[in-house]
Amino acid sequence: MKILKNDIFIKACKRKPVERTPIWVMRQAGRYLPEYREIRKKYDFLTMCKTPELASEVTIQPVNLINIDAAILFSDILVIPEAMGLELKILENKGPVFLNPVRDKNDFLNLKKINPFKDLKYVLDSITITKNILNGEVPLIGFSGSPWTLLTYMIEGGSSKNFGKVKKLIYDEPDFAHLILDFLADAVTDYLNAKIETGVDAVQIFDTWGGILSPDMFNEFSLNYIKKIISGIKIKDKPVIVFSKGAYFALENIAESGADVIGLDWTSDIGNVRKRIGEKAALQGNLDPAVLYASIDKIRKEASKIIDSFGYGSGHIFNLGHGIHPDTNPDNLKELVRFVKQYSVKYHKSEN
Amino acid sequence: MKILKNDIFIKACKRKPVERTPIWVMRQAGRYLPEYREIRKKYDFLTMCKTPELASEVTIQPVNLINIDAAILFSDILVIPEAMGLELKILENKGPVFLNPVRDKNDFLNLKKINPFKDLKYVLDSITITKNILNGEVPLIGFSGSPWTLLTYMIEGGSSKNFGKVKKLIYDEPDFAHLILDFLADAVTDYLNAKIETGVDAVQIFDTWGGILSPDMFNEFSLNYIKKIISGIKIKDKPVIVFSKGAYFALENIAESGADVIGLDWTSDIGNVRKRIGEKAALQGNLDPAVLYASIDKIRKEASKIIDSFGYGSGHIFNLGHGIHPDTNPDNLKELVRFVKQYSVKYHKSEN
Repeated sequence: MKILKNDIFIKACKRKPVERTPIWVMRQAGRYLPEYREIRKKYDFLTMCKTPELASEVTIQPVNLINIDAAILFSDILVIPEAMGLELKILENKGPVFLNPVRDKNDFLNLKKINPFKDLKYVLDSITITKNILNGEVPLIGFSGSPWTLLTYMIEGGSSKNFGKVKKLIYDEPDFAHLILDFLADAVTDYLNAKIETGVDAVQIFDTWGGILSPDMFNEFSLNYIKKIISGIKIKDKPVIVFSKGAYFALENIAESGADVIGLDWTSDIGNVRKRIGEKAALQGNLDPAVLYASIDKIRKEASKIIDSFGYGSGHIFNLGHGIHPDTNPDNLKELVRFVKQYSVKYHKSEN
Repeated sequence: MKILKNDIFIKACKRKPVERTPIWVMRQAGRYLPEYREIRKKYDFLTMCKTPELASEVTIQPVNLINIDAAILFSDILVIPEAMGLELKILENKGPVFLNPVRDKNDFLNLKKINPFKDLKYVLDSITITKNILNGEVPLIGFSGSPWTLLTYMIEGGSSKNFGKVKKLIYDEPDFAHLILDFLADAVTDYLNAKIETGVDAVQIFDTWGGILSPDMFNEFSLNYIKKIISGIKIKDKPVIVFSKGAYFALENIAESGADVIGLDWTSDIGNVRKRIGEKAALQGNLDPAVLYASIDKIRKEASKIIDSFGYGSGHIFNLGHGIHPDTNPDNLKELVRFVKQYSVKYHKSEN
């Protein structure tokens, strides 16, 4: 395996000394880049996910164009339920939809137990190609949805405003919900193990809908399964990032889950969270993606507030608090990356 | 003015001794009630808002059917921007839409400065009729959207996933955003003053989208204007409730805003919040509306957890953490109300 030329992302995940704060951003391989839109014109989203050459190409775009410190494999969290047999459509302006959502035990029994080396081979092939092209330039992150977040889509059949169906399930039929979540946790564990074996340098678990649960329900229906996944990851030295959007109430518990890094959305003060979580995990975040709509001066000011708030020492990976908005000017992101790299140096001087 | 026969809601708002915890629920006048749906079959939503006899009838339904401790006037937060000149349509399955959203300074200058006694007379007439029919049975709550929440709809033109347009406005043209927010704060102040003069016993400010802002931006673009409204309310002895959904990070600041009561969604532990906020405000909430999908046993268990967590003494108004889901069984709500009234007695014994 190639030695990484730029490994400060990995070091910061492990809270080892670095010369500056690393930065990457969620959805950095995406629609805000004209170079991405050029490819997207020719292929639909799922074709891009499933064609290793295309997935690799857009994965690498922000490395060269934006100078980020880590690439994240272009894919979608819903490839797992799709491989299990749910028919996935991505509708313009409506997002992903499952044509045959899980509505009863029979639907669940019809789900296929997946083997990632066979059923999601295209993802692993994308990793191999991407790692070859990256040639150790920056690390490659692989990701999965959390079982809870996957369950919401599988039950609701798509995005939802109130999540009435999946909440009805967990309150009304908790045992059945646990059955599906356990099945999903096993699949996610196998999937992340396959990704790590194939070559990703870190993994992120996206728990996009963790924040819609009450604290107790979050522990029972989301965090329990994230813990199960983390303890099932075989190669232990690859950093694991857990991002439960909106689950501010659970940060202490997530820090005890075995995760190396906790992702934060922009509603937390990162300095306060650092005080709460102490030395249990590194923190990733947490600029509101909408700040990138502002002037360069404002972008610098908001980014510096986050870096100042985290303060001295390693353990911070700069990121947005959610995916970059598709109508962001890429020059603004480029300036953010340049600024974070330069401004953060002063907080790391004593470490080297 | 009639003396209230049941005033424990008002007393709890002021943290005065009560014999048990009062309860009402957001959207209690709504689609989960077959009696509401009967009327809704004949009239569209906006017609119901604008016809005082119909608005009163559905406002009173849960008083008789569910035995709640306060009525809340059936209306919509968007009647203010509509009265200012924005054309409002309620689309089935899509929610409210403004056909001519505010997109530039010219659109803003075209907004009409409203006089609630003229432009929203139908709301005040509904209050008069409702108060007459209620005949002091329970208090009547009036409400408004917060300026920030109204702004999101006026700029986005409806509900939104990312709130890209309104966030672009506050980051890119903050002065213009402040101009509109100030204009809205004046309108909301006049509107709430008119409601109080006409007879409502308490008011609630719904800041439904406060939680999408970072802590700094929340203070600047939402809370500042909520404070302005509260300080502009002329009759000072009517309780003011502020509910900023998702703004857990701001609860201390909201407690300093002059609000008598702070609404909580279900992602907070009410006992912890009580410790943080101390004796600054009463708390309202905070059962996940989805709990009402569960069995009666589970509903009782979850409700008792909240009452236990708040603990001894007055200052808690039981409510859901958000509006009741339209597909809730009304019998489950009825049982929740019965249970809260009975179970909470033990926490108030020493006060009387």
